[in-house]
Amino acid sequence: MGIRNRQWLLASRPRGPVEESNFRLVETEVPALRDGELLVRVHYLSLDPYMRGRMDDAKSYAASQALGEVMIGGTVGEVVESRNPRWPVSELVVGTGGWQELHVSDGKGIMKVARGLPESVYLGAVGMPGVTAWYGLLQIGKPKAGETVVVSAASGAVGSVVGQLAKLRGCRAVGIAGGPAKCAHVVNDLGFDACVDYKAEAFREGFKAAVPDGIDVLFENVGGAVFDASLARMNAFGRIALCGLIAGYGGQDISLRNVRSILVNRLLVQGFIVSEHMELWPEALKELGAHVAAGKIKYRETVAQGLESAPRAFIGLLRGENLGKQLVKVAG
Amino acid sequence: MGIRNRQWLLASRPRGPVEESNFRLVETEVPALRDGELLVRVHYLSLDPYMRGRMDDAKSYAASQALGEVMIGGTVGEVVESRNPRWPVSELVVGTGGWQELHVSDGKGIMKVARGLPESVYLGAVGMPGVTAWYGLLQIGKPKAGETVVVSAASGAVGSVVGQLAKLRGCRAVGIAGGPAKCAHVVNDLGFDACVDYKAEAFREGFKAAVPDGIDVLFENVGGAVFDASLARMNAFGRIALCGLIAGYGGQDISLRNVRSILVNRLLVQGFIVSEHMELWPEALKELGAHVAAGKIKYRETVAQGLESAPRAFIGLLRGENLGKQLVKVAG
Repeated sequence: MGIRNRQWLLASRPRGPVEESNFRLVETEVPALRDGELLVRVHYLSLDPYMRGRMDDAKSYAASQALGEVMIGGTVGEVVESRNPRWPVSELVVGTGGWQELHVSDGKGIMKVARGLPESVYLGAVGMPGVTAWYGLLQIGKPKAGETVVVSAASGAVGSVVGQLAKLRGCRAVGIAGGPAKCAHVVNDLGFDACVDYKAEAFREGFKAAVPDGIDVLFENVGGAVFDASLARMNAFGRIALCGLIAGYGGQDISLRNVRSILVNRLLVQGFIVSEHMELWPEALKELGAHVAAGKIKYRETVAQGLESAPRAFIGLLRGENLGKQLVKVAG
Repeated sequence: MGIRNRQWLLASRPRGPVEESNFRLVETEVPALRDGELLVRVHYLSLDPYMRGRMDDAKSYAASQALGEVMIGGTVGEVVESRNPRWPVSELVVGTGGWQELHVSDGKGIMKVARGLPESVYLGAVGMPGVTAWYGLLQIGKPKAGETVVVSAASGAVGSVVGQLAKLRGCRAVGIAGGPAKCAHVVNDLGFDACVDYKAEAFREGFKAAVPDGIDVLFENVGGAVFDASLARMNAFGRIALCGLIAGYGGQDISLRNVRSILVNRLLVQGFIVSEHMELWPEALKELGAHVAAGKIKYRETVAQGLESAPRAFIGLLRGENLGKQLVKVAG
């Protein structure tokens, strides 16, 4: 008798907002390992906005996920069985294990991580979201000391690192977030110079006051009206790293009105996906790990308990209910 | 008694479409030259879409033009009087003389040109529009042989050069233009592989058929629905040189719906203005001049006769009534 596993499958594609019924929890048996394979017990599952795109039929970053397959997702966990000498039992590894308790790997696409920092940080500030922030801000935004950097979804796993990296580079860091609690966290805990609440009535005035010298670098995660508000304040030769359009992930209209700003201000806009720049991950992870260890990059986590909570937590993430990195604690 | 000059002044700012009443024709006297100055008789005045932006109060590329001043504009003409030994009488010069018959220069911002090619070409294919095409296509678009390049306003002074340069680089060149006459000119005279009429009912189908392998480089002059149509067909890692948004120059809504394509396809979008890259003009003009001399870059002109026709011709340009480069023959 084999080892039991629990998995969340994509049961149906969302029509509009994601619903719990789009997922199906199944129990399966882990197949016997073949030579070169290893079995990882997932400790933490990462929930990220990009997953929404994979649920659609439409063309997303990558091929859309097939119905009936285990939901894609980043994981950190421990090797519990191995037929691969490079990956001994009890090694801590980060990979794309998916929404399940156990996953079999052939050693490709996984990475050993040290036990010095809390495990979950490898799914956040010292993982894919952190590298996303690092790449978009530094490789596309190229901020210079004294410049103003704006990031939307500033309290999220990516946005929180963007602003802190900008501060470490001598920039003015301004966040955009939804609600006073997130904004207070961004300023008081993360050390941004300012954070404006896009849900507030006085958003436009508050935003204007927060960027008195305009915006030199924009790290855009949201799209739509929030993106437009930033476009209206861009300085000449500004750079925009387009990382996400979460405002449109439910099929909402995210038309952009201020296109003229791109022309008039000679802006650079660059869409990107961090997994296409693996050659820079070691450099990025080294810097991020050092900053986190030194307490110079802080992070907050929202942790849902148990694999069964994943769909509910994911829906909450898409609604902006989490603060900081959204995780699911699966085991460990 | 001094020399008489005629000048078109900006009389009022347009509300919506430009009208002839926004301009005022005046007769003035040319002031006596001071040391270092020269007097140029304008042969041709260039009319270009960017002038529309200067007529507004709103922030454009540069400061908006003050009311009561001579309309800005590129010119080619002959030195008829000089107190500057570097600029002898009868020299042919290109500069920003404005909408007038004569202009005084201190020698800055003007350029000597050879008499080998027709004078007017220095306002078109071997002038600012040509360099605009060259810069946006080659420095931003960076097309590789075999790639597909799309340019909107393809029959215009800029667009016509973009497509021909793309062909010379071994690319598939596809134009977008308004009406069957312009499209026929773009394919039959300029040698593009295809041209689609954005005013035609079958535009979407025709466009799809014209770019069977998608779009790698987009040179965007129009904006709005035309821009959106191209965004929908961009390939991964495509490059977009944003040169103009003529569809919105009358205050029309040019919102962009397909913003998601920038993210999903990891596109680069770069707004630019060619006068900020003067260091590349010599290289560009050399290549363009050689191609025109060799008959490898062809061009068409629409020439309005007499300075008094400038406002009417400019309004026609904004309506797309011209074919190729819009000029005003002032003298010579």
